[in-house]
Amino acid sequence: MSQLRYNLITGDWVILAPERSKRPMDFVRSRVDTEVSAHQEGCPFCLGNEAAAGEEVWRTPESGPWAVRVLPNKYASLVPGTEMTRTGTGYQRSMSGLGRHEVIIETPLHNGFLATQAPAQVGSVLLSWRERMLAFYQDPVVEHVILFKNHGEAAGSSLTHPHSQIYGVPVVPEQVRSRLEDALRFYADNGECVFCHCLRLEREQGERVVAENDAFVAFIPYAALSPYHLWIFPKRHLACFGAISDAELEALSLLLCDVLSRLHASLDDPDYNLVVQSLSPAESSVRYAHWYLSIVPRLAKAAGFELGTGMFINPSLPESSARYLREAKV
Amino acid sequence: MSQLRYNLITGDWVILAPERSKRPMDFVRSRVDTEVSAHQEGCPFCLGNEAAAGEEVWRTPESGPWAVRVLPNKYASLVPGTEMTRTGTGYQRSMSGLGRHEVIIETPLHNGFLATQAPAQVGSVLLSWRERMLAFYQDPVVEHVILFKNHGEAAGSSLTHPHSQIYGVPVVPEQVRSRLEDALRFYADNGECVFCHCLRLEREQGERVVAENDAFVAFIPYAALSPYHLWIFPKRHLACFGAISDAELEALSLLLCDVLSRLHASLDDPDYNLVVQSLSPAESSVRYAHWYLSIVPRLAKAAGFELGTGMFINPSLPESSARYLREAKV
Repeated sequence: MSQLRYNLITGDWVILAPERSKRPMDFVRSRVDTEVSAHQEGCPFCLGNEAAAGEEVWRTPESGPWAVRVLPNKYASLVPGTEMTRTGTGYQRSMSGLGRHEVIIETPLHNGFLATQAPAQVGSVLLSWRERMLAFYQDPVVEHVILFKNHGEAAGSSLTHPHSQIYGVPVVPEQVRSRLEDALRFYADNGECVFCHCLRLEREQGERVVAENDAFVAFIPYAALSPYHLWIFPKRHLACFGAISDAELEALSLLLCDVLSRLHASLDDPDYNLVVQSLSPAESSVRYAHWYLSIVPRLAKAAGFELGTGMFINPSLPESSARYLREAKV
Repeated sequence: MSQLRYNLITGDWVILAPERSKRPMDFVRSRVDTEVSAHQEGCPFCLGNEAAAGEEVWRTPESGPWAVRVLPNKYASLVPGTEMTRTGTGYQRSMSGLGRHEVIIETPLHNGFLATQAPAQVGSVLLSWRERMLAFYQDPVVEHVILFKNHGEAAGSSLTHPHSQIYGVPVVPEQVRSRLEDALRFYADNGECVFCHCLRLEREQGERVVAENDAFVAFIPYAALSPYHLWIFPKRHLACFGAISDAELEALSLLLCDVLSRLHASLDDPDYNLVVQSLSPAESSVRYAHWYLSIVPRLAKAAGFELGTGMFINPSLPESSARYLREAKV
């Protein structure tokens, strides 16, 4: 029989129905083997095509050949500005599409996928995320910053060249606010951060932990919403990703490389979304919230059930998936 | 510049960025023309293969050749039962996977897609939905019933033969509860059902209305979450779909045929999800909530941004899309 589990962070009940899928390796989707070359003519993100991509707003290293560079998104859905107009009340409320939207080019190499990169390169990407998040929060129009990466077509990516995106939106999203309210309530009831609470239990039990180092733990949560849905939690209680130290950046790049290469090796380069869930720098020291990183391989398709209920059906068992990743030959 | 609009029903801010897409017809995706025949050897839902599909729990008409029949899902993620076990508290809360999960075979014809059917056939499908919803709510384990249809691969459908699904889940989904709380709050503040409020304003303005008859209105909401995201609202205030009258069923089948054929004709048979949002029969007379039907063509892909924020970016303008559908040659 299947089982429902409650996800204490998201507030969702998940239906775990592993008998629908059988074994962890059933999620391996054989890829049509299309070799991607290191350089592609006409790709605006490739080395040598920098002029086509638009003005650079950040780069590392500061001089010499670039490792990571950041540009305003050419097709930005939010644009910088100060003239915020709000209209209407009740049913017809609107505001100007002001905010920030940039693209992070993660490597000069067209085929330099994050999962196959050295930790130093991944560290440069993480550095760009931290610096751009802090810069975005300087803009008074920006209320919330979301950092994410879409890898592969099933994850919504339209460009092959490895890149991530950062948005500064002029509202606190309902989902963010509602989870924060739940975290506040949990803290008021229990005197403990709900994320620290989850992390403590996951580490005590260990069976869903995939990898761990001094500063971070990667695990498949007890009530994972989808197959191989992974969370990376910092051990230090901190609510804002922008406030992490250089040492933490380095530790995170090591663990992220480890986890992504396990996914890559054991699920044959799955399409995935990666998201940094974080509050603002002003909130970084609050006791009730915690930033974290979420990786969602796109192995199951959300459909009418998920749209209509907000609930998920996960055709896998977190414990089995975690074991499969722990045992992956990398 | 793009614009943010607030969706009063879902509580989400949506980014409308129509300049990313240009015109309504840019969403027409040319289909690879694969002719589907009326009968397919080996399809468990086709006429003549009834034995392979499993035991029938409902059908119409009661005798003679069937028009619509309902079966328990062969790969059900929830199974009927009475021995509900709940374990744990806090982070590790679980319950047995009890509930109901059935498949509605909408037609004996393998190619009898809802959008191309006569209203009488669609009426039989709606009848099955109403009857099975009422039956599901008789089960004390069932807390919420969700009715949906996935049409096409992008919408998560794995079988071509036209069918819909009904789930009875043993919890009230967080999304349902949270929207209900918002509706309660709106009623307390304004003395009006928030759905009736929206419907009144949509009809007054008319520019987003796609079609209407005596009992129902189809419109693209002011803050549509995605391109051609359609809502069909009943004019009569009623919270449970199971409580609609025979006359309303007939009116709904006419309007649904109209709307689906407009989508079919003007967007070249788009993949879509259809969901019935409803409360239970016990709640059907409450003043603050309203059942409705939602149609979500899968024309844009949810990715890291949507996962990380719960917000949506809609690359279309509801007013233009509604006009395009109104003017469609059916």
